[in-house]
Amino acid sequence: MSTSSLSEICQFIADDLAALEKTLRENTANEYEFVDLAVQHVVGGGGKRLRPILLILSAKACGYQKGDVHTLATVVELIHVASMVHDDVLDEAPIRRGSDTLHSKWGNKVAVLVGDYLHARVLSMLVARQVDDPAMRMLSEATQSMCEGEVIHAYKIGDFDISQEEYLKIVGMKTGKLITASCTMGAILGTRDEKIIQVSKKYGESIGTAFQIIDDLLDFVADGEKLGKRPFNDLREGKLTYPTIYTRQVCTDEERATLKQVFNAEMDEDSAIEWVQSLLNRYRTQEHCLQIAQDYVNRAKSALTVLPDSPAKRALEQLADYVVSRDW
Amino acid sequence: MSTSSLSEICQFIADDLAALEKTLRENTANEYEFVDLAVQHVVGGGGKRLRPILLILSAKACGYQKGDVHTLATVVELIHVASMVHDDVLDEAPIRRGSDTLHSKWGNKVAVLVGDYLHARVLSMLVARQVDDPAMRMLSEATQSMCEGEVIHAYKIGDFDISQEEYLKIVGMKTGKLITASCTMGAILGTRDEKIIQVSKKYGESIGTAFQIIDDLLDFVADGEKLGKRPFNDLREGKLTYPTIYTRQVCTDEERATLKQVFNAEMDEDSAIEWVQSLLNRYRTQEHCLQIAQDYVNRAKSALTVLPDSPAKRALEQLADYVVSRDW
Repeated sequence: MSTSSLSEICQFIADDLAALEKTLRENTANEYEFVDLAVQHVVGGGGKRLRPILLILSAKACGYQKGDVHTLATVVELIHVASMVHDDVLDEAPIRRGSDTLHSKWGNKVAVLVGDYLHARVLSMLVARQVDDPAMRMLSEATQSMCEGEVIHAYKIGDFDISQEEYLKIVGMKTGKLITASCTMGAILGTRDEKIIQVSKKYGESIGTAFQIIDDLLDFVADGEKLGKRPFNDLREGKLTYPTIYTRQVCTDEERATLKQVFNAEMDEDSAIEWVQSLLNRYRTQEHCLQIAQDYVNRAKSALTVLPDSPAKRALEQLADYVVSRDW
Repeated sequence: MSTSSLSEICQFIADDLAALEKTLRENTANEYEFVDLAVQHVVGGGGKRLRPILLILSAKACGYQKGDVHTLATVVELIHVASMVHDDVLDEAPIRRGSDTLHSKWGNKVAVLVGDYLHARVLSMLVARQVDDPAMRMLSEATQSMCEGEVIHAYKIGDFDISQEEYLKIVGMKTGKLITASCTMGAILGTRDEKIIQVSKKYGESIGTAFQIIDDLLDFVADGEKLGKRPFNDLREGKLTYPTIYTRQVCTDEERATLKQVFNAEMDEDSAIEWVQSLLNRYRTQEHCLQIAQDYVNRAKSALTVLPDSPAKRALEQLADYVVSRDW
C-alpha cells in the first residue's frame, strides 16, 4: 500500500481541523497584545496537529456522534505546544519547523512563561468546559507523566550507558503518554465499551513508540531544512536515543570507545558527524530502526481490527503507516 | 500594637500547618528517586507558606467547619512554588531562602521541568479530589493571570518609563491574584454569603499589594543574608519596582538621568548601589513605601470589621501588620 500524506489522510475531517484551528485561536487570544503575539507565534499554524488528529479520528472510529471533541483536541495540542516551547528553551534550539523559536525571538524568560501560560490556559479550559471526569483524569495523568519523563531525561543527559529498556520507558512517558491519552480520550467520546477503549489505548501506545523511534532516526538522517532544525542535535546535547543506543549495543568495543568520545564532545564536530554516519551505515541502523518502528505500527494496526469499518478507522490505519514514512 | 511573628500569629492553627506539610509531602512524593529529590528540595520547608495560611485563616474566619481545606492549601502553595522555581531560573538567582536554588544545583533543564511537574501535580490533585467548581475556576483564573503578568513583566524588562499604575497592575496579576484567590477560596469553604466572600477578596487584594510593595522595598534595604538572596537584584535585572518608580517620579531631571544610567548598567556596580542608596535616602523612599503599604494594610483590616470576632479574624488582622513589619 502506498503511503498517504497527512493531509490526504485527513481530508475527510477537513471541517473538524478547521474547527480545531478556530478553537485554538479563540482559546489562546489574549487581551494583552504582546502575550497574544508570543502565544500565536507558537500556537498558530506550522504544527502537524498529530495529537488532535488522533483524538478526532479515535472518537469517530469508536462511534462518536456528538459532544465537545474540539475542546479536548485543543487541550491536547496546547499541552504539546507548551512542552515544545520549554524543550526549545532547554535545548537552546534556534529554529523549529523552519521558524525562529520563541526564545530566540524574545528571550528565555518570555518562552518559559508562555509555556506556563499555555498550561494555565489548559487548566482554565478544562474547568470552564467541565470536561467529563475520565477525560480530565487521563489528561492530568498524561501531563504529569510527560513532566516526570522530561525531568528524568534531563537528569540522564550525559549518561552513555542508558539501557534501551530505560530509554523506551522514559520516552514512553515523555511522548507516548500524551499520544495514548489523545487516542483514549477520543475513544471515550465515542463509546463506553471498555474493550473498544482498550483498543484505542493499545493503538496509541504502539504508534507513540513508533513515532518516537522515527523522530530519533530523523535527527540522524533527515534533511535539516525539511526537518526545520539542525540534524545530530540529540547527540550534540548529550542524549543517546534509539538509533545510537542500538548501535552502541551491537558495535565493537573499539567503536564503542570512539562513540563515547563523540558523545563526550571530545572530537571536532564535523569529523564526529562523519564518523557517526559511517558507523550507523555499517550497522544498518536506519534499516533496523525502521523495522522496529514498523513492528510497532503493525501492532497498532492489528489492534484496530476489532473496530467496525469506517473512514476514521481507515484513516487511523493510514496514519500508522504515515508515522514510519514521514520525513519531518 | 506590637507586631507578632508569623509563627506566633499561626500558633492556634499549628495542627493545620502540620497537616499541610504532610499533605504537601504526600502529594509530591515521587516514585522516581531523582524527581522526588528535586521536588522535595523546593517544596520541603523553608517557605513562609503565606498563601496556605491565608486560605486556612480566611476559611476559619468565615465560619469554615469541615471540608478539604488542606488540599486547596497545598494546591495554592504548589502553584506558588512552581512559579518561584521558574522565576529563579529566569532571574539566574543562585540562592533563595539561603539555600542553593534548584537550577544552580541541577541545572536549568531540571528546574524548568520541575516547575512544569508541579503544575501538572496541581492539575492531577484538582481532578482527583474533585474540588468544587467555584474554587477550581478561581484557581485557574489566578494561575492564568499570574502567568500573563509574568509574561508582561518579562517583556517590560529594561523599560525605564513604566508607570506606577502599570507596574501595580502587573504585580497585581503576578502576585496579587494568587494571594486574593487564597483568601477568597478560604471564604468559600466557610460561607455562601456573597458579602462575606467579597470581604475576603478585598482583604486579599489589599494585603497582596502591601506584600508586593514591601517585597520590592526589601530588595533595597534588607539584610541580604536574612533575605536569602543578594540585594539590589531587581535593579540589576533591569526591573524598576515600586521604590525606584516612586523615586524616579519625584527626583530631579539630573538624578533621573543618572538613575537611568544605573538602570542601563552603565555604572560600575559598587558605586551604582551606593548612589541609589543615597538617592533613596534623600527622597525618604523607604518611609514613603512603608506608608503606602500601611495604607493598604489598613484597608485590609477595615474590610475585616464586618466579620464576627474569632481567633482566625484576629490572626488575619495580625497577619496584615506582619506583612509590613517583616524583614524577609
